[in-house]
Amino acid sequence: MSEILKVVKIGGKVAEHDATLESFLRDFAEIKGPKLLVHGGGVIATKIGEKLGIKSEMVEGRRITDRATLDVVSMVYGGLVNKKIVAGLQALDINAIGLTGADLNIIQAKKRDVKPVDFGWVGDIVKVNASALFGLIESDVVPVLAPLTHDGYGNMLNTNADAIASFVASALSKEMETELLLCFDQPGVLNEGKVIPEITRELYKQLKEACIITDGMIPKLDLGFQALRQGVSRVKITAFDAVNENHKGTALLS
Amino acid sequence: MSEILKVVKIGGKVAEHDATLESFLRDFAEIKGPKLLVHGGGVIATKIGEKLGIKSEMVEGRRITDRATLDVVSMVYGGLVNKKIVAGLQALDINAIGLTGADLNIIQAKKRDVKPVDFGWVGDIVKVNASALFGLIESDVVPVLAPLTHDGYGNMLNTNADAIASFVASALSKEMETELLLCFDQPGVLNEGKVIPEITRELYKQLKEACIITDGMIPKLDLGFQALRQGVSRVKITAFDAVNENHKGTALLS
Repeated sequence: MSEILKVVKIGGKVAEHDATLESFLRDFAEIKGPKLLVHGGGVIATKIGEKLGIKSEMVEGRRITDRATLDVVSMVYGGLVNKKIVAGLQALDINAIGLTGADLNIIQAKKRDVKPVDFGWVGDIVKVNASALFGLIESDVVPVLAPLTHDGYGNMLNTNADAIASFVASALSKEMETELLLCFDQPGVLNEGKVIPEITRELYKQLKEACIITDGMIPKLDLGFQALRQGVSRVKITAFDAVNENHKGTALLS
Repeated sequence: MSEILKVVKIGGKVAEHDATLESFLRDFAEIKGPKLLVHGGGVIATKIGEKLGIKSEMVEGRRITDRATLDVVSMVYGGLVNKKIVAGLQALDINAIGLTGADLNIIQAKKRDVKPVDFGWVGDIVKVNASALFGLIESDVVPVLAPLTHDGYGNMLNTNADAIASFVASALSKEMETELLLCFDQPGVLNEGKVIPEITRELYKQLKEACIITDGMIPKLDLGFQALRQGVSRVKITAFDAVNENHKGTALLS
């Protein structure tokens, strides 16, 4: 394959409303060449969890995942959201396959240490089965990855979708040229409401020190720079409705 | 492949308790040669639906599937139960992949006519993509199928697991010799509490007329005989804890 693989990540907010999801999927379907989608689902998991009487507890933007919460995220990410996306893509003639880390042993993870915070059934990625994913992509299949991994001992693990996108893009960049697009509900990384078009490592350091890049943007950018270091040729942070607009969003520079 | 493919179907009751599921998965893992698992999940879907305030309405043993119920079964079958099984099999070194009919367009279905009963988002199988399934099986992958299909227009459809097992076994019997095992919580088809070892079509007719085979056993046996007619070499109805015991259960004879 001489083309460039695009690994696209969307947050759970895209899947919250059917119309937004359909619009995104039409844009995604139009991306030429090989592609892979990673989705979140946190907003929906919180809602369904509440209805089931399971309260979401968040620490540093990460969900504490007890057994009941693990069942909720397995259902919502692996079932509801993943299958809505797969069926939606099939309707657009994209041969999608929904996968969690357990399927084909695509992503094995390790339950996070209980110190300093016990996050419960949360996984940190250990290994991506790039050859299995690459085999699918070579057959013109579009993998749709839910933010779930497994520990190899029969347990599913709740895993951050940005991390999955970054690790998967990095692993696949050994097989073919790969780009990573982290899409969310803002037009890019912002400074006083304006999109910063490019961020070098040096600028990233300065923006963190000046408290312009804070909170949830820090792990996102860390994962973006990590992907660049691991061989991904281009990393962009952009709006989910601008997935096909190359001039928009924030590009990370190594 | 010269071996015989075993298509095994288990009801949702197996997945209700972790210990029962683990025990079944160990037995299933020991089946030699190519295999495929189809699972139900109705009991768990009913429970989770109730917690979410969505009541299950059943007509002739089939669930009326409105939009809210479709979301519940997508979550429970496609997420919770399917991923528990896949992670459990991976822990036993079985390279499982969880699939619904939408994934790889494995099973396309048609929303059932609203007359005489409007079952809602329930699908009758139109087409099984045998070559995609066979490709996985040839690569030593074990497909784990949730009882969900799609309509090709972006909608998931709730589909009977026995029907999926029968149609998939029939389609795959064109590719390789195939056996179908319909496993449930009884030791076989019973007559006065005793397992009937073999049922021919003629005997089936008589047992129905004598009201010995009734209710939910009728569609199960119909689907079994249909599989035999379609090329499946052997159909057995047996207990889920006897999946490896060839002398147990009821065999259907064409």
